[in-house]
Amino acid sequence: MRILITNDDGFDSKGIAALMGLAQEFSDDIWVVAPDKTYSGMSHAITMHSPIFVEKMETSVAGLHSYVCAGTPVDCMKMALDEILKGEKQPDLVLSGINHGSNSNISVIYSGTMGAAMEGALYGIPSIGLSLTDHNLDADFDGAVMIARKVIQNVINMEHDDKIGLCINVNIPNINKENIKGIKYCRQTKGCWKEKFIARKDPNGNDYYWMSGKFYNDEPLAADTDEWALQNGYATIVPVKMDMTDYDRLAKLCANEENS
Amino acid sequence: MRILITNDDGFDSKGIAALMGLAQEFSDDIWVVAPDKTYSGMSHAITMHSPIFVEKMETSVAGLHSYVCAGTPVDCMKMALDEILKGEKQPDLVLSGINHGSNSNISVIYSGTMGAAMEGALYGIPSIGLSLTDHNLDADFDGAVMIARKVIQNVINMEHDDKIGLCINVNIPNINKENIKGIKYCRQTKGCWKEKFIARKDPNGNDYYWMSGKFYNDEPLAADTDEWALQNGYATIVPVKMDMTDYDRLAKLCANEENS
Repeated sequence: MRILITNDDGFDSKGIAALMGLAQEFSDDIWVVAPDKTYSGMSHAITMHSPIFVEKMETSVAGLHSYVCAGTPVDCMKMALDEILKGEKQPDLVLSGINHGSNSNISVIYSGTMGAAMEGALYGIPSIGLSLTDHNLDADFDGAVMIARKVIQNVINMEHDDKIGLCINVNIPNINKENIKGIKYCRQTKGCWKEKFIARKDPNGNDYYWMSGKFYNDEPLAADTDEWALQNGYATIVPVKMDMTDYDRLAKLCANEENS
Repeated sequence: MRILITNDDGFDSKGIAALMGLAQEFSDDIWVVAPDKTYSGMSHAITMHSPIFVEKMETSVAGLHSYVCAGTPVDCMKMALDEILKGEKQPDLVLSGINHGSNSNISVIYSGTMGAAMEGALYGIPSIGLSLTDHNLDADFDGAVMIARKVIQNVINMEHDDKIGLCINVNIPNINKENIKGIKYCRQTKGCWKEKFIARKDPNGNDYYWMSGKFYNDEPLAADTDEWALQNGYATIVPVKMDMTDYDRLAKLCANEENS
């Protein structure tokens, strides 16, 4: 089994190291193409107007192929699939993460971790984005690895048809692994991030700002939402789709038009 | 009526100038917060790890307030809503574009134009992303403006409840405006972009690449898809939602779990 790994915290982060270690339990054919620095909040961004630098890294692990890419997480995926592995066997599984920080609720739409996982799924590869709800650079990934191991095994065991287009957003609560109650399938909580901007002036008198966000729920937290489950000690899986059409609204717009 | 405008091609682009001109037919309270340069392909990216510079511009048009922001389209939206208009009346309508180039099909997920429109909708403001299927810097926006005028009027005329959470992706075909057959409500065409990387070496022998993509349909083009409609001379409207949960797959995953 060939596994492709990326993240958005950068090649040197503790989270991707944990994922690389775990992947070796499942495969001896692992390709890592990860960003040179943090690309948190880069969503599904691609680099269209500047060149992308890529460097192959030395590794001492047999079957582990590592590249550092000066691009977004989605750039890394495209670089891996359309250039580094061009004409070769495509990966059987994409893993993105393990992210330092939550990607539950609407954060899925801003997340570089999930941007990369979605891109893998768009190429037809079952893809798993993994996040731990702890931003700390030195976060403890033991519980996240325990959950990730189960999730990866479950995806590998799936029927072929169930793997087609599969993209899942896995979040693991930042609690002792003994206290994680299990894994719950959930829907994305409705909410949004609003910002507080910290205003400063540079030495030339120009205005600049630092963005600092806060999540606002747009609904009471029901037991089928990812936020509820995380707050209640569960790891969460939200299946994600890349067809963003709002079909309910589409039907209504079409009906209104016919009646007008 | 207060209108907020942004884009991803930058403050100086012809497409946003066309939209600013059109907006003045509807409002004398217009706020433009647009990027300092092109941010095409920036999706829903936000700037979390560097400061964002903002400059107020002089304008000679009464009621037009203009700012240039050295950030992504979503940064521009957040800067407008949470800093520039902080504590003031929020906009009644968000307009993003008019983009130089199509944002139909899966391009919606990579699009900075649509990232900004989605962000407006997340703040509860009816939001319209507009794109012309012509990348040319000097593209002819006459047909796009004609369609945009109708779409904006239709959104203004909507019942209050129909405006809640509204986010629409409008694409206009690059044909003479007399030949545009009308406006069609559509779903997002299934497909993906795959890349061809042009490989080069810098003067120090380091590898770098230019990304160059091609769209692949993953389905025969049915008459309810945006790609079919654009190819057949229609402007298209795809309603977009920010809940990315794949509910069909979620139901199946839950059912499988109960049976296991």
